[in-house]
Amino acid sequence: MAQRKSLADSPCPVARSLDIVGDRWSMLIVRDAFDGLRRFGEFQASLGVARNILSDRLRTLVEEGVLAIGPASDGSAYQEYVLTAKGEALFPVVVAMRQWGEAHLYARGEKYSVLIDRATGKPVAKALPRREDGRVLRPADTLVKKVRAPG
Amino acid sequence: MAQRKSLADSPCPVARSLDIVGDRWSMLIVRDAFDGLRRFGEFQASLGVARNILSDRLRTLVEEGVLAIGPASDGSAYQEYVLTAKGEALFPVVVAMRQWGEAHLYARGEKYSVLIDRATGKPVAKALPRREDGRVLRPADTLVKKVRAPG
Repeated sequence: MAQRKSLADSPCPVARSLDIVGDRWSMLIVRDAFDGLRRFGEFQASLGVARNILSDRLRTLVEEGVLAIGPASDGSAYQEYVLTAKGEALFPVVVAMRQWGEAHLYARGEKYSVLIDRATGKPVAKALPRREDGRVLRPADTLVKKVRAPG
Repeated sequence: MAQRKSLADSPCPVARSLDIVGDRWSMLIVRDAFDGLRRFGEFQASLGVARNILSDRLRTLVEEGVLAIGPASDGSAYQEYVLTAKGEALFPVVVAMRQWGEAHLYARGEKYSVLIDRATGKPVAKALPRREDGRVLRPADTLVKKVRAPG
Protein backbone atom coordinates (compact mmCIF):
# COMPACT_ATOMS: atom_id res chain seq x y z
CA MET A 1 0.00 0.00 0.00
CA ALA A 2 2.85 2.38 0.77
CA GLN A 3 4.23 1.86 -2.73
CA ARG A 4 0.84 2.37 -4.33
CA LYS A 5 0.40 5.56 -2.37
CA SER A 6 3.79 6.92 -3.40
CA LEU A 7 3.03 6.48 -7.11
CA ALA A 8 -0.41 8.06 -6.71
CA ASP A 9 1.23 11.12 -5.15
CA SER A 10 4.09 11.35 -7.63
CA PRO A 11 4.86 14.60 -9.45
CA CYS A 12 5.77 12.38 -12.43
CA PRO A 13 2.72 11.83 -14.67
CA VAL A 14 4.16 8.51 -15.91
CA ALA A 15 4.23 7.18 -12.34
CA ARG A 16 0.77 8.46 -11.57
CA SER A 17 -0.64 6.81 -14.70
CA LEU A 18 1.07 3.54 -13.83
CA ASP A 19 -0.56 3.65 -10.43
CA ILE A 20 -3.88 3.18 -12.26
CA VAL A 21 -3.05 1.20 -15.41
CA GLY A 22 0.42 -0.14 -14.59
CA ASP A 23 -0.83 -3.67 -14.42
CA ARG A 24 -1.30 -6.02 -17.32
CA TRP A 25 -4.89 -6.93 -16.42
CA SER A 26 -6.02 -3.33 -16.09
CA MET A 27 -4.60 -2.48 -19.51
CA LEU A 28 -6.09 -5.61 -21.07
CA ILE A 29 -9.52 -4.72 -19.65
CA VAL A 30 -9.15 -1.27 -21.21
CA ARG A 31 -8.10 -2.85 -24.51
CA ASP A 32 -11.14 -5.15 -24.43
CA ALA A 33 -13.41 -2.21 -23.61
CA PHE A 34 -12.10 -0.47 -26.75
CA ASP A 35 -13.00 -3.64 -28.64
CA GLY A 36 -16.59 -3.37 -27.39
CA LEU A 37 -16.61 -5.79 -24.46
CA ARG A 38 -18.86 -4.61 -21.62
CA ARG A 39 -19.80 -7.44 -19.28
CA PHE A 40 -17.95 -9.21 -16.51
CA GLY A 41 -18.41 -12.55 -18.24
CA GLU A 42 -17.12 -11.16 -21.53
CA PHE A 43 -13.95 -9.83 -19.91
CA GLN A 44 -13.51 -13.09 -18.07
CA ALA A 45 -13.85 -15.17 -21.22
CA SER A 46 -11.46 -12.91 -23.10
CA LEU A 47 -8.78 -12.70 -20.45
CA GLY A 48 -9.02 -16.06 -18.69
CA VAL A 49 -8.19 -14.25 -15.47
CA ALA A 50 -9.36 -15.30 -11.99
CA ARG A 51 -12.72 -13.77 -11.06
CA ASN A 52 -11.38 -12.11 -7.90
CA ILE A 53 -8.57 -10.40 -9.82
CA LEU A 54 -10.98 -9.27 -12.54
CA SER A 55 -13.38 -7.94 -9.87
CA ASP A 56 -10.58 -6.05 -8.17
CA ARG A 57 -9.30 -4.46 -11.39
CA LEU A 58 -12.78 -3.51 -12.59
CA ARG A 59 -13.55 -1.91 -9.22
CA THR A 60 -10.32 0.11 -9.30
CA LEU A 61 -10.94 1.25 -12.88
CA VAL A 62 -14.46 2.38 -11.88
CA GLU A 63 -13.15 4.12 -8.75
CA GLU A 64 -10.55 5.92 -10.84
CA GLY A 65 -13.15 7.04 -13.37
CA VAL A 66 -11.73 5.04 -16.28
CA LEU A 67 -14.85 2.87 -16.55
CA ALA A 68 -18.44 3.66 -15.59
CA ILE A 69 -21.09 1.11 -14.64
CA GLY A 70 -24.37 1.29 -16.47
CA PRO A 71 -27.44 -0.85 -17.15
CA ALA A 72 -27.24 -3.48 -19.86
CA SER A 73 -27.71 -2.12 -23.37
CA ASP A 74 -30.18 -4.94 -24.14
CA GLY A 75 -32.47 -4.24 -21.20
CA SER A 76 -31.39 -7.36 -19.32
CA ALA A 77 -30.36 -7.38 -15.65
CA TYR A 78 -26.61 -7.41 -16.39
CA GLN A 79 -24.36 -4.52 -15.44
CA GLU A 80 -22.11 -3.14 -18.12
CA TYR A 81 -18.73 -1.44 -17.89
CA VAL A 82 -18.18 1.35 -20.37
CA LEU A 83 -15.17 3.60 -20.95
CA THR A 84 -15.65 7.16 -19.71
CA ALA A 85 -14.10 10.11 -21.56
CA LYS A 86 -11.07 9.69 -19.26
CA GLY A 87 -10.94 6.01 -20.23
CA GLU A 88 -11.28 6.77 -23.94
CA ALA A 89 -8.31 9.10 -23.55
CA LEU A 90 -6.17 6.01 -22.96
CA PHE A 91 -6.50 5.21 -26.67
CA PRO A 92 -3.06 6.65 -27.53
CA VAL A 93 -1.48 4.51 -24.77
CA VAL A 94 -3.06 1.31 -26.07
CA VAL A 95 -2.13 2.22 -29.66
CA ALA A 96 1.49 2.95 -28.65
CA MET A 97 1.70 -0.40 -26.82
CA ARG A 98 0.24 -2.16 -29.87
CA GLN A 99 2.62 -0.48 -32.29
CA TRP A 100 5.67 -1.32 -30.18
CA GLY A 101 4.53 -4.93 -30.07
CA GLU A 102 3.92 -5.05 -33.82
CA ALA A 103 7.37 -3.67 -34.56
CA HIS A 104 9.43 -5.64 -32.06
CA LEU A 105 7.72 -8.74 -30.70
CA TYR A 106 6.79 -10.89 -33.68
CA ALA A 107 8.97 -13.16 -35.72
CA ARG A 108 8.96 -12.77 -39.46
CA GLY A 109 5.80 -14.32 -40.89
CA GLU A 110 4.08 -14.60 -37.52
CA LYS A 111 0.47 -13.37 -37.59
CA TYR A 112 -0.95 -10.66 -35.38
CA SER A 113 -4.08 -8.56 -35.16
CA VAL A 114 -3.98 -5.15 -36.84
CA LEU A 115 -5.63 -1.83 -35.98
CA ILE A 116 -7.46 -0.55 -39.04
CA ASP A 117 -8.77 2.90 -39.94
CA ARG A 118 -12.44 2.20 -40.77
CA ALA A 119 -12.55 5.00 -43.35
CA THR A 120 -9.59 3.82 -45.39
CA GLY A 121 -9.32 0.14 -44.51
CA LYS A 122 -5.60 0.69 -43.96
CA PRO A 123 -3.53 0.06 -40.83
CA VAL A 124 -3.27 3.04 -38.47
CA ALA A 125 0.03 4.89 -38.94
CA LYS A 126 2.53 5.02 -36.10
CA ALA A 127 1.62 7.59 -33.46
CA LEU A 128 4.91 9.27 -32.57
CA PRO A 129 5.77 12.37 -30.57
CA ARG A 130 6.41 15.13 -33.11
CA ARG A 131 7.44 18.73 -33.27
CA GLU A 132 4.96 21.22 -34.78
CA ASP A 133 6.79 21.00 -38.12
CA GLY A 134 6.10 17.25 -38.16
CA ARG A 135 9.61 16.08 -37.32
CA VAL A 136 9.64 13.02 -35.04
CA LEU A 137 10.99 13.74 -31.55
CA ARG A 138 13.47 11.18 -30.32
CA PRO A 139 14.29 10.71 -26.63
CA ALA A 140 17.54 12.69 -26.96
CA ASP A 141 15.58 15.65 -28.34
CA THR A 142 13.73 16.00 -25.05
CA LEU A 143 14.31 16.50 -21.36
CA VAL A 144 12.11 16.28 -18.30
CA LYS A 145 11.72 19.58 -16.52
CA LYS A 146 11.40 18.79 -12.86
CA VAL A 147 8.81 20.67 -10.91
CA ARG A 148 9.87 22.97 -8.13
CA ALA A 149 8.76 21.92 -4.69
CA PRO A 150 5.53 23.72 -3.83
CA GLY A 151 5.74 26.70 -1.48
CA MET B 1 3.51 -18.93 -15.46
CA ALA B 2 0.61 -20.19 -17.56
CA GLN B 3 -0.80 -16.68 -17.74
CA ARG B 4 2.57 -15.17 -18.63
CA LYS B 5 3.00 -17.73 -21.37
CA SER B 6 -0.42 -17.04 -22.84
CA LEU B 7 0.29 -13.31 -23.18
CA ALA B 8 3.71 -13.97 -24.70
CA ASP B 9 2.05 -16.13 -27.35
CA SER B 10 -0.85 -13.80 -28.02
CA PRO B 11 -1.70 -12.68 -31.56
CA CYS B 12 -2.63 -9.32 -29.96
CA PRO B 13 0.38 -6.98 -29.94
CA VAL B 14 -1.02 -5.12 -26.92
CA ALA B 15 -1.02 -8.33 -24.89
CA ARG B 16 2.45 -9.30 -26.06
CA SER B 17 3.81 -5.87 -25.10
CA LEU B 18 2.18 -6.09 -21.69
CA ASP B 19 3.87 -9.42 -21.14
CA ILE B 20 7.15 -7.48 -21.11
CA VAL B 21 6.30 -4.02 -19.81
CA GLY B 22 2.87 -4.57 -18.26
CA ASP B 23 4.18 -4.03 -14.79
CA ARG B 24 4.64 -0.69 -13.07
CA TRP B 25 8.26 -1.33 -12.08
CA SER B 26 9.33 -2.36 -15.56
CA MET B 27 7.84 0.79 -17.06
CA LEU B 28 9.34 2.98 -14.33
CA ILE B 29 12.77 1.46 -14.98
CA VAL B 30 12.33 2.27 -18.68
CA ARG B 31 11.24 5.81 -17.77
CA ASP B 32 14.31 6.24 -15.56
CA ALA B 33 16.55 4.89 -18.32
CA PHE B 34 15.16 7.59 -20.64
CA ASP B 35 16.07 10.10 -17.92
CA GLY B 36 19.68 8.86 -18.01
CA LEU B 37 19.81 6.48 -15.04
CA ARG B 38 22.07 3.51 -15.66
CA ARG B 39 23.11 1.80 -12.45
CA PHE B 40 21.33 -0.59 -10.12
CA GLY B 41 21.81 1.80 -7.22
CA GLU B 42 20.45 4.72 -9.22
CA PHE B 43 17.29 2.82 -10.13
CA GLN B 44 16.93 1.67 -6.54
CA ALA B 45 17.25 5.18 -5.16
CA SER B 46 14.79 6.52 -7.71
CA LEU B 47 12.14 3.83 -7.33
CA GLY B 48 12.48 2.80 -3.69
CA VAL B 49 11.68 -0.73 -4.79
CA ALA B 50 12.94 -3.90 -3.07
CA ARG B 51 16.28 -5.08 -4.46
CA ASN B 52 14.97 -8.52 -5.41
CA ILE B 53 12.10 -7.03 -7.41
CA LEU B 54 14.44 -4.57 -9.12
CA SER B 55 16.87 -7.41 -9.92
CA ASP B 56 14.09 -9.50 -11.38
CA ARG B 57 12.70 -6.70 -13.56
CA LEU B 58 16.16 -5.66 -14.81
CA ARG B 59 16.96 -9.27 -15.69
CA THR B 60 13.69 -9.64 -17.62
CA LEU B 61 14.24 -6.37 -19.48
CA VAL B 62 17.75 -7.53 -20.45
CA GLU B 63 16.48 -10.97 -21.50
CA GLU B 64 13.80 -9.34 -23.64
CA GLY B 65 16.33 -7.03 -25.29
CA VAL B 66 14.91 -3.79 -23.90
CA LEU B 67 18.05 -3.04 -21.88
CA ALA B 68 21.65 -4.09 -22.53
CA ILE B 69 24.35 -4.47 -19.91
CA GLY B 70 27.59 -2.65 -20.51
CA PRO B 71 30.68 -1.50 -18.63
CA ALA B 72 30.47 1.68 -16.60
CA SER B 73 30.85 4.84 -18.64
CA ASP B 74 33.34 6.22 -16.08
CA GLY B 75 35.67 3.21 -16.23
CA SER B 76 34.69 1.98 -12.76
CA ALA B 77 33.72 -1.61 -11.98
CA TYR B 78 29.97 -0.93 -12.03
CA GLN B 79 27.68 -2.47 -14.61
CA GLU B 80 25.37 -0.17 -16.47
CA TYR B 81 21.97 -0.79 -18.02
CA VAL B 82 21.33 1.06 -21.24
CA LEU B 83 18.28 1.12 -23.50
CA THR B 84 18.72 -0.81 -26.74
CA ALA B 85 17.09 0.37 -29.98
CA LYS B 86 14.12 -1.83 -29.04
CA GLY B 87 14.01 -0.14 -25.63
CA GLU B 88 14.26 3.35 -27.12
CA ALA B 89 11.29 2.43 -29.29
CA LEU B 90 9.20 2.46 -26.09
CA PHE B 91 9.48 6.26 -26.05
CA PRO B 92 5.99 6.75 -27.58
CA VAL B 93 4.51 4.46 -24.91
CA VAL B 94 6.11 6.41 -22.07
CA VAL B 95 5.09 9.72 -23.65
CA ALA B 96 1.49 8.54 -24.11
CA MET B 97 1.36 7.42 -20.45
CA ARG B 98 2.78 10.78 -19.36
CA GLN B 99 0.35 12.77 -21.46
CA TRP B 100 -2.66 10.84 -20.17
CA GLY B 101 -1.47 11.47 -16.62
CA GLU B 102 -0.92 15.18 -17.27
CA ALA B 103 -4.40 15.57 -18.71
CA HIS B 104 -6.39 13.49 -16.25
CA LEU B 105 -4.62 12.82 -12.96
CA TYR B 106 -3.69 16.20 -11.49
CA ALA B 107 -5.89 18.61 -9.64
CA ARG B 108 -5.94 22.21 -10.80
CA GLY B 109 -2.80 23.97 -9.61
CA GLU B 110 -1.01 20.75 -8.67
CA LYS B 111 2.58 20.61 -9.96
CA TYR B 112 4.00 17.92 -12.19
CA SER B 113 7.10 17.33 -14.26
CA VAL B 114 6.93 18.28 -17.93
CA LEU B 115 8.54 16.78 -21.04
CA ILE B 116 10.29 19.55 -22.94
CA ASP B 117 11.54 19.76 -26.52
CA ARG B 118 15.21 20.77 -26.08
CA ALA B 119 15.21 22.73 -29.33
CA THR B 120 12.23 24.92 -28.55
CA GLY B 121 12.03 24.79 -24.76
CA LYS B 122 8.32 24.08 -25.10
CA PRO B 123 6.32 21.11 -23.82
CA VAL B 124 6.06 18.21 -26.26
CA ALA B 125 2.72 18.24 -28.11
CA LYS B 126 0.27 15.39 -27.62
CA ALA B 127 1.20 12.30 -29.62
CA LEU B 128 -2.10 11.05 -31.02
CA PRO B 129 -2.97 8.44 -33.64
CA ARG B 130 -3.71 10.36 -36.84
CA ARG B 131 -4.80 9.79 -40.39
CA GLU B 132 -2.39 10.81 -43.17
CA ASP B 133 -4.29 14.09 -43.59
CA GLY B 134 -3.54 14.89 -39.95
CA ARG B 135 -7.01 14.25 -38.55
CA VAL B 136 -6.94 12.63 -35.10
CA LEU B 137 -8.22 9.06 -35.07
CA ARG B 138 -10.65 8.31 -32.28
CA PRO B 139 -11.38 4.79 -31.05
CA ALA B 140 -14.68 4.66 -32.99
CA ASP B 141 -12.78 5.45 -36.21
CA THR B 142 -10.88 2.19 -35.91
CA LEU B 143 -11.39 -1.54 -35.66
CA VAL B 144 -9.13 -4.45 -34.86
CA LYS B 145 -8.76 -6.88 -37.73
CA LYS B 146 -8.38 -10.30 -36.21
CA VAL B 147 -5.80 -12.58 -37.67
CA ARG B 148 -6.89 -15.75 -39.37
CA ALA B 149 -5.79 -18.93 -37.67
CA PRO B 150 -2.59 -20.13 -39.32
CA GLY B 151 -2.88 -22.98 -41.81
